[in-house]
Amino acid sequence: MTTVIDAALVAEHNAKLASDLKADYEALGGMLARRGVDIEELTSLAQTFAVAVPSWGVGTGGTRFARFPGRGEPRNVFEKLDDCGVINQLTKATPTVSLHFPWDRPSDARELREAASALGLGFDAVNSNTFQDQAGQEQTYKFGSLTANSREVRAQAIAHNIDCIELGKSLGSQSLTVWVGDGANFPGQSNLRGALERYLESMREIYAALPDDWTVMIEHKLFEPAFYATTIADWGTSFACAQALGPKAKCLVDLGHHAPNTNIEMIVARLAQFGKLGGFHFNDSKYGDDDLDSGSINPFQLFLVFNELADAAQRDGAGFKPSYMLDQSHNVTDPVESLMSSAVEVQRAFVQAALVDRAALAGFQESNDVLQAAQTLKQAYRTDVSAILAMARVRAGGAADPVRCYRASGYRDRVAAARPPKAGASGSGIV
Amino acid sequence: MTTVIDAALVAEHNAKLASDLKADYEALGGMLARRGVDIEELTSLAQTFAVAVPSWGVGTGGTRFARFPGRGEPRNVFEKLDDCGVINQLTKATPTVSLHFPWDRPSDARELREAASALGLGFDAVNSNTFQDQAGQEQTYKFGSLTANSREVRAQAIAHNIDCIELGKSLGSQSLTVWVGDGANFPGQSNLRGALERYLESMREIYAALPDDWTVMIEHKLFEPAFYATTIADWGTSFACAQALGPKAKCLVDLGHHAPNTNIEMIVARLAQFGKLGGFHFNDSKYGDDDLDSGSINPFQLFLVFNELADAAQRDGAGFKPSYMLDQSHNVTDPVESLMSSAVEVQRAFVQAALVDRAALAGFQESNDVLQAAQTLKQAYRTDVSAILAMARVRAGGAADPVRCYRASGYRDRVAAARPPKAGASGSGIV
Amino acid sequence: MTTVIDAALVAEHNAKLASDLKADYEALGGMLARRGVDIEELTSLAQTFAVAVPSWGVGTGGTRFARFPGRGEPRNVFEKLDDCGVINQLTKATPTVSLHFPWDRPSDARELREAASALGLGFDAVNSNTFQDQAGQEQTYKFGSLTANSREVRAQAIAHNIDCIELGKSLGSQSLTVWVGDGANFPGQSNLRGALERYLESMREIYAALPDDWTVMIEHKLFEPAFYATTIADWGTSFACAQALGPKAKCLVDLGHHAPNTNIEMIVARLAQFGKLGGFHFNDSKYGDDDLDSGSINPFQLFLVFNELADAAQRDGAGFKPSYMLDQSHNVTDPVESLMSSAVEVQRAFVQAALVDRAALAGFQESNDVLQAAQTLKQAYRTDVSAILAMARVRAGGAADPVRCYRASGYRDRVAAARPPKAGASGSGIV
Amino acid sequence: MTTVIDAALVAEHNAKLASDLKADYEALGGMLARRGVDIEELTSLAQTFAVAVPSWGVGTGGTRFARFPGRGEPRNVFEKLDDCGVINQLTKATPTVSLHFPWDRPSDARELREAASALGLGFDAVNSNTFQDQAGQEQTYKFGSLTANSREVRAQAIAHNIDCIELGKSLGSQSLTVWVGDGANFPGQSNLRGALERYLESMREIYAALPDDWTVMIEHKLFEPAFYATTIADWGTSFACAQALGPKAKCLVDLGHHAPNTNIEMIVARLAQFGKLGGFHFNDSKYGDDDLDSGSINPFQLFLVFNELADAAQRDGAGFKPSYMLDQSHNVTDPVESLMSSAVEVQRAFVQAALVDRAALAGFQESNDVLQAAQTLKQAYRTDVSAILAMARVRAGGAADPVRCYRASGYRDRVAAARPPKAGASGSGIV
Repeated sequence: MTTVIDAALVAEHNAKLASDLKADYEALGGMLARRGVDIEELTSLAQTFAVAVPSWGVGTGGTRFARFPGRGEPRNVFEKLDDCGVINQLTKATPTVSLHFPWDRPSDARELREAASALGLGFDAVNSNTFQDQAGQEQTYKFGSLTANSREVRAQAIAHNIDCIELGKSLGSQSLTVWVGDGANFPGQSNLRGALERYLESMREIYAALPDDWTVMIEHKLFEPAFYATTIADWGTSFACAQALGPKAKCLVDLGHHAPNTNIEMIVARLAQFGKLGGFHFNDSKYGDDDLDSGSINPFQLFLVFNELADAAQRDGAGFKPSYMLDQSHNVTDPVESLMSSAVEVQRAFVQAALVDRAALAGFQESNDVLQAAQTLKQAYRTDVSAILAMARVRAGGAADPVRCYRASGYRDRVAAARPPKAGASGSGIV
Repeated sequence: MTTVIDAALVAEHNAKLASDLKADYEALGGMLARRGVDIEELTSLAQTFAVAVPSWGVGTGGTRFARFPGRGEPRNVFEKLDDCGVINQLTKATPTVSLHFPWDRPSDARELREAASALGLGFDAVNSNTFQDQAGQEQTYKFGSLTANSREVRAQAIAHNIDCIELGKSLGSQSLTVWVGDGANFPGQSNLRGALERYLESMREIYAALPDDWTVMIEHKLFEPAFYATTIADWGTSFACAQALGPKAKCLVDLGHHAPNTNIEMIVARLAQFGKLGGFHFNDSKYGDDDLDSGSINPFQLFLVFNELADAAQRDGAGFKPSYMLDQSHNVTDPVESLMSSAVEVQRAFVQAALVDRAALAGFQESNDVLQAAQTLKQAYRTDVSAILAMARVRAGGAADPVRCYRASGYRDRVAAARPPKAGASGSGIV
Repeated sequence: MTTVIDAALVAEHNAKLASDLKADYEALGGMLARRGVDIEELTSLAQTFAVAVPSWGVGTGGTRFARFPGRGEPRNVFEKLDDCGVINQLTKATPTVSLHFPWDRPSDARELREAASALGLGFDAVNSNTFQDQAGQEQTYKFGSLTANSREVRAQAIAHNIDCIELGKSLGSQSLTVWVGDGANFPGQSNLRGALERYLESMREIYAALPDDWTVMIEHKLFEPAFYATTIADWGTSFACAQALGPKAKCLVDLGHHAPNTNIEMIVARLAQFGKLGGFHFNDSKYGDDDLDSGSINPFQLFLVFNELADAAQRDGAGFKPSYMLDQSHNVTDPVESLMSSAVEVQRAFVQAALVDRAALAGFQESNDVLQAAQTLKQAYRTDVSAILAMARVRAGGAADPVRCYRASGYRDRVAAARPPKAGASGSGIV
Repeated sequence: MTTVIDAALVAEHNAKLASDLKADYEALGGMLARRGVDIEELTSLAQTFAVAVPSWGVGTGGTRFARFPGRGEPRNVFEKLDDCGVINQLTKATPTVSLHFPWDRPSDARELREAASALGLGFDAVNSNTFQDQAGQEQTYKFGSLTANSREVRAQAIAHNIDCIELGKSLGSQSLTVWVGDGANFPGQSNLRGALERYLESMREIYAALPDDWTVMIEHKLFEPAFYATTIADWGTSFACAQALGPKAKCLVDLGHHAPNTNIEMIVARLAQFGKLGGFHFNDSKYGDDDLDSGSINPFQLFLVFNELADAAQRDGAGFKPSYMLDQSHNVTDPVESLMSSAVEVQRAFVQAALVDRAALAGFQESNDVLQAAQTLKQAYRTDVSAILAMARVRAGGAADPVRCYRASGYRDRVAAARPPKAGASGSGIV
């Protein structure tokens, strides 16, 4: 396997931090032991965690007002894979990449698959794109794609999704995520019910093209780019559609796609209960679909989401396997750094949720001891599991401190030299 | 039929306004004719409109901070019926009353039914109450009712709902509205999934007690009284439960029970599409479940809701029959006045929605003429149909100007004399 | 004066509609007379209304996901002026244009001034742009402009604003609107207090460069492009800064720049009371800074804003002169059509607010007759003043139905032929 | 000094936990030492922390729908003091009590002062109440208090506030907190500007009655009990009023009184910068003024608030002394337990904020190293300082685990026996 960062450099980095890490790990181990918890079990569990990285996330994002490019942005899918390789090499938590078509369309699927494999990477869900017009495209998505009034537009969007499935099959992917921005900016622009009927009709064709072992994930979003009414705006619509389509259709929860004040962890519980939780796009937000780094704004919410996932795993066993992906826009940071630290934040929530004493919690709930039930969650959340996460990385060959190690490696400087900025480009994906 | 206000006084009131009303009606008729619309059809349609009045709405409401009683508040269900009788007499738009048990529990159902009938009133949905503890009640709802951990609490709540059905049957009602405030104030207080499982288990027992021609309506609400997680918090949960229960279970939409920025008319469209739109609680709000007078804050939203209802009626025909009820808290106005003007506001939206040129709208949508599609709705909404509403009332025997007529009648003074305030009472219903 | 649309075509259009308009106008006049209102006074008042058009509004907008260009988009400031000329010619409500630098920077200010003058247009506030990097710019605004940590960046941003003032002076403008997107995407990214201190320091230099008869308007915005903390996020900050700067500094209210559920009309009342209401950016929104057409989502809110403006005008007399501008993003409509109908919607709210019987309202408020106070506003709002607006336009030489007349003129086809799309361009302004 | 809980019991409790606490404290001390932080400094700092307890907080709260009383609720101000005494005895973080008049009006101020003193308690800000009508009151606050149209109502409200100042003087308080629910439920109900003019006029009279060393704190709140427009709705209004009144007027920030998505820590920074930050009401919320336990919903936000306070303390030195109070509604927990654990949560945020390496943070900000700036905050926040808080308590004579010690003491059982429930009472304060 190729490693993008020199393995010796990682080892040297880890060696420097080894003594402090060992001391912290033992200190934490003692604290946990006094609470009856075995730190080794948690460290082993941490090593099982995996979250996919989106290919477009390694480019610099932006807003409708501006995009301020970063240095050394990847210019094609192979360079994106290199960046993803770094992230996984140092965190050991991101073994798969989620591609977006047509942006990442390879001329040769085998070549792409081999390039990924050489980096120790596989492919997660593939993503279709019917929210932009591509050069040379026959029909415009200005007035919708899968829901468009025009039969020709819908046919084009359906064909593109089926093409994504074909590409995904050739790459070893097993799921398709469908996000459409379709909707209306004005009351009256669209017949709200008619639009969803057309959506279901289109999705039925896509569904029919899914291999038996594939899943199609429906991603809802409250608003943007549509600012009055979005066809797939909430989990209720997503759920009703997934039900209408069949067992291979599930719902995807992006943490930034909800109305203000929404209790997202309850949506997770609902979808798990009704068997339709397909996966996540992790990020954080304060206002809308802000696509900020996971856990940077409301880390307790992220923990509560994983608390529901732990509850579902306990109830549903091995069959409960939602897919995890980061989906963030890195406007003011180095995307590789943000993705590494975000992967760690999601992993942190996963480990903290495992720390919840579920038997005690159930007991407090049963006896309406509300304060102690709440404290049971808070105690797990308050625990600083940083040393566990670092140890898990080091044991797996990653870096004790991924960002510090990355900076020491000089990777960004190297790619900045190798990847000169494209003239006037905002082309690295969603801005 | 008894009329609470002297019919001669109404007639005199109408006579005084007749000439101006006629002139306004003709002026509007001319305007509409120039747009190809027959005013008489709209007036006839307006006369078909009906919205139920909640028995608790005729008392003065309040907040957790204070309730400032009004004069002459009704002290029992018979006095509430009198007030409801006034509202229907003057508006001719509120022929039914929705009762709340145990508040309105009659000692003799036949007597209550006859009292209503004498006033020209019938009974709409009955409402159960498991969000308060009643004097002498065995189990407390402090920690939930239909979702409580305690089997005894759930049994009590189920029995109460079944009792409500029995009472409703004896009164000629055909539906039960179930709103529970159950939820949690702390993360951890409740197992989110377990709570919904218990809810469904409880509701199945209630469902089993429903007569064949009855509907049970599930009412969701984002928050209050639970401030972290509400078991039936959104339309998605309501819909999933209604599906799980069966065809007699439907969803009820209260306009104030949604997250900020929610597109409520789209929820209406979704529930209509999936056959689960049971009915409405009309009111208006700016912040939360403010329970303000219908159409007082965002009248265009009310119109857009009725635009979806008109669309659904056109698609689904006579089978589409959601129930309409006002559900408001009158803290600073005379409740009778607020309910009269609110009934008129809802009726106004109903008539304005009928003014939408649906064929033209569909054409603009089909051709993506977004501006004209939007203008088609706006033109209907902008039309001041006040003269149509007044004429519809006058023709049906109501008052041209209900509030003015009511004030002229001296009704409030009379009941203030007849109904002295109860000492320390906040007992007139939900505050 | 040049007219962009053939005046004979407008006259012909008006002639066709004249009979219906006369009949509608008389019908409405009669209705108003019966309420004691003279329609002619309202029509005269309507003719005094003016709202500026933003130069960037005549291009097609977009989102961070995509921009779908329209036909015949203007390629330079002269073509933008032509489009603005059409809007004012047909609506007679938009006599000024608001320019944005450097986008609209003329090589010869006199030439631009004369071009505008020939079209009957003047210049409203000028707008600076420090939220994007321009080609060849020395310092980047990636990490802020007027608030940047870097002294060099701040100096560049200050110089640009002072340059805007100079340009504005040469064009006959009398105010500068300063909107900065400066802020942070992460807690910790910026010292919140330090950023505002630097902002004030920068603004003091700009303020010092203002001519005596100029105003600088501070525009606040809750979020976007900064997604955690925006330096000028709310009216409180804007007000505190305007106070700190001095009497030539005022606050600008954009209807889409507030937190969910904010009562915007109350902010208007506050700023008017404290003498700091500088002006408006009109648009509408449902979720964030959606920049939808004015009055398309919540027309009652627009009316309530004008109700406060009418109240302030009554209190403060001729000295009360906030500036009005449209600021919208037209993603799915012809921008000229949207700007015309939006100008009319704002004018509609202005005329409806004038219909409020302020003496009666004050009386109801004084006696706590809440219902009638509310109805006093609603009656004015419900009045369909379309005929007044049309008559005001026709009398001033505009079009009875601007959109229909515009379509009949073939203007869009003509400019589509004359203005071929720029390859790959998203350059027509804010997307 | 009287202790409500037997001191021997506390000592015994601490003895049992001493060994584990020592081990945890040393483990944490080692971790901190490896980061260059001296745990003893933090523990000393923790001991300086103090937050006031509201007298009404020791009763069970409720909502407009219901209040479910708890056992042993205090029936008068002396019993409330006993409960507050327990809270401070075990947490050593709540040495003062904030009284609410007329609820807590003593017949003999000296007696009350001595009772408090015996428990080691002093009095923080006093609170006036003009949002409820008291029995026997001449004027009603139904339509406002300090902003009422009626001169007589305003005079009564002003006199009550001045009376509160007199009471406070006799009790050793030095500040008055003024919260008014005044506002409107309907557009038109109130002249928005006139209401604030009357507010300022009323407040000027109250301000004039303040002793020289007193502060009056203005508390804003977005909504509830007014549901359309609240006179003092946001920090901008609060700030403008505090400025208009003079240097003894400051602003109070309640964490639950803001619009959705508001960045509260930025409001803290603004008020600190402009010298108007008077104090806090701590609680937590997800939807509105939910009054949940501090830190139970969004603990990172609480930390970020204290991060701003630490920044201000560093800048402004000893003169920066905002007052801290808990203001919560305990609907489903034992209020004593909730107040103890909430005091600890606020103290936790205070200590974590002290852990922020401010020099490093400033450096990262200066160099736009956004990721590391963010991580600097996150590292401090992630640190589990529980052992520091426990050690600080134990050293000061409090309990290692306040809730466990309290439960062991049997206090609730004892007061439940001594304080039988009042018939039909909801009288223990704000519900």
